Amino acid sequence: MKIARFQRGNQVAYGVVEGDQVIELEGSPFEGIRRTRRSYPLAQVKLLVPVVPSTFYAAGVNYMDHVRRMAAITGRQASPPKAADVGYRANNALIAHEEAIVIPRDATERTQYEGELVVVIGKKAKNISEEEVWDYIFGYTIGNDFSERTWQAGDRTHWRAKNSDTFKPMGPWIETDADPKNMRTIVRVNGQEVQNFATNNMIFGIAQFMSRMSKYMTLYPGDVLWMGTDGVPENVKPGDVIEIEISGIGVLRNPVVAEK
Amino acid sequence: MKIARFQRGNQVAYGVVEGDQVIELEGSPFEGIRRTRRSYPLAQVKLLVPVVPSTFYAAGVNYMDHVRRMAAITGRQASPPKAADVGYRANNALIAHEEAIVIPRDATERTQYEGELVVVIGKKAKNISEEEVWDYIFGYTIGNDFSERTWQAGDRTHWRAKNSDTFKPMGPWIETDADPKNMRTIVRVNGQEVQNFATNNMIFGIAQFMSRMSKYMTLYPGDVLWMGTDGVPENVKPGDVIEIEISGIGVLRNPVVAEK
Repeated sequence: MKIARFQRGNQVAYGVVEGDQVIELEGSPFEGIRRTRRSYPLAQVKLLVPVVPSTFYAAGVNYMDHVRRMAAITGRQASPPKAADVGYRANNALIAHEEAIVIPRDATERTQYEGELVVVIGKKAKNISEEEVWDYIFGYTIGNDFSERTWQAGDRTHWRAKNSDTFKPMGPWIETDADPKNMRTIVRVNGQEVQNFATNNMIFGIAQFMSRMSKYMTLYPGDVLWMGTDGVPENVKPGDVIEIEISGIGVLRNPVVAEK
Repeated sequence: MKIARFQRGNQVAYGVVEGDQVIELEGSPFEGIRRTRRSYPLAQVKLLVPVVPSTFYAAGVNYMDHVRRMAAITGRQASPPKAADVGYRANNALIAHEEAIVIPRDATERTQYEGELVVVIGKKAKNISEEEVWDYIFGYTIGNDFSERTWQAGDRTHWRAKNSDTFKPMGPWIETDADPKNMRTIVRVNGQEVQNFATNNMIFGIAQFMSRMSKYMTLYPGDVLWMGTDGVPENVKPGDVIEIEISGIGVLRNPVVAEK
């Protein structure tokens, strides 16, 4: 089931996407799916970020090919993370499917996509085992961990490198029935495929991250965990359009524009 | 004016604290203070975290004495931050005044308080000058950036070192009329003063941080910015009670307990 959050006029609601229609839901899907009799053509509503998390988690570096090839480029030794130590991103940066990524005026040309699987938590979780993790997942969506590499290398934190306004596209919706074991992540720039990797080929998997996190932190419904990206992304520039497709979920598409 | 968020039975509301009473407000104080005729003895309500931010910002290292003395302890060279690059903390870790900080079972004995001034954003802000910053502040509260130093030194991120559940006490309320120029931050453990510093003696001040942040990020009402701590904190252990007082705001008090 595809759960979208959408706006129609001044009204914001959740809905179930079926074909080219969205069937409005009552209340929050995290408290139970209650369909209404109202439905609208998908083309006539504006999709919103499917959930605004209470805490926005990100795995960061989590694919070996990414580690090896980035090391080859920078001339440093490849050093994969030793443990599933999670990081954070910021809600101010979230934008929805089809909204524009705005490159700040003083950014360098080193602005890059990162196609990522996003896990959406469905139930309050503390001290859960790796086996139990799957019962606490509401579904999956797609994230673009857009980054300015010069700032990422030089700043003390990832604040503007990864959390400038519009740098975190997420959507288009949450798929509740997807299976991460069989997904591929495909990135296209202006329609041309630039990445294609097995989504589940992570250094630390979803179960390892969520179980370890839950030892110290309570995970809440609507919290999101971005799982990292593989390969080596390339620069994009204003005028480009980035599409991230994850099989079984959908396509997240965002144009890139320059700050005015 | 002291703005608290409180619970009474199952009801959660904002209120204005006057003496030993809290006068209930209608709606959110970020949209305008509307007093009701209902008031309760402060002793008969439970204070909550005064605001749950959309994004939880933290200055991190931001006092020279802290930089110098920590360097002397670790034997490394003192390296103050070069720019007001902001960091992040996580909402799962927030607790209110009087709630217990729970030390995880596998934490080392190196668990420490950090008394911090917290700025609460009052208005949506983007691209504001250092002079304009003050118009965008709703008020000030107190934070304890509680930390496990072994994890802080060894983990890839500050996830459990600073964001384990209960590691971010914040409160007791938001003071809208305080002046950061004249504040002192005083930390007491079991009633004994262990720190006393000029709150405003920061490497990068509130105006520098907020103006620089707003160049890349939209700040939203209710977002919080923790300003860092001075000096060198000492270890605390289960059974201890930590009080952080900032003049003009109040006292944030939290007992420390061991995870069961």
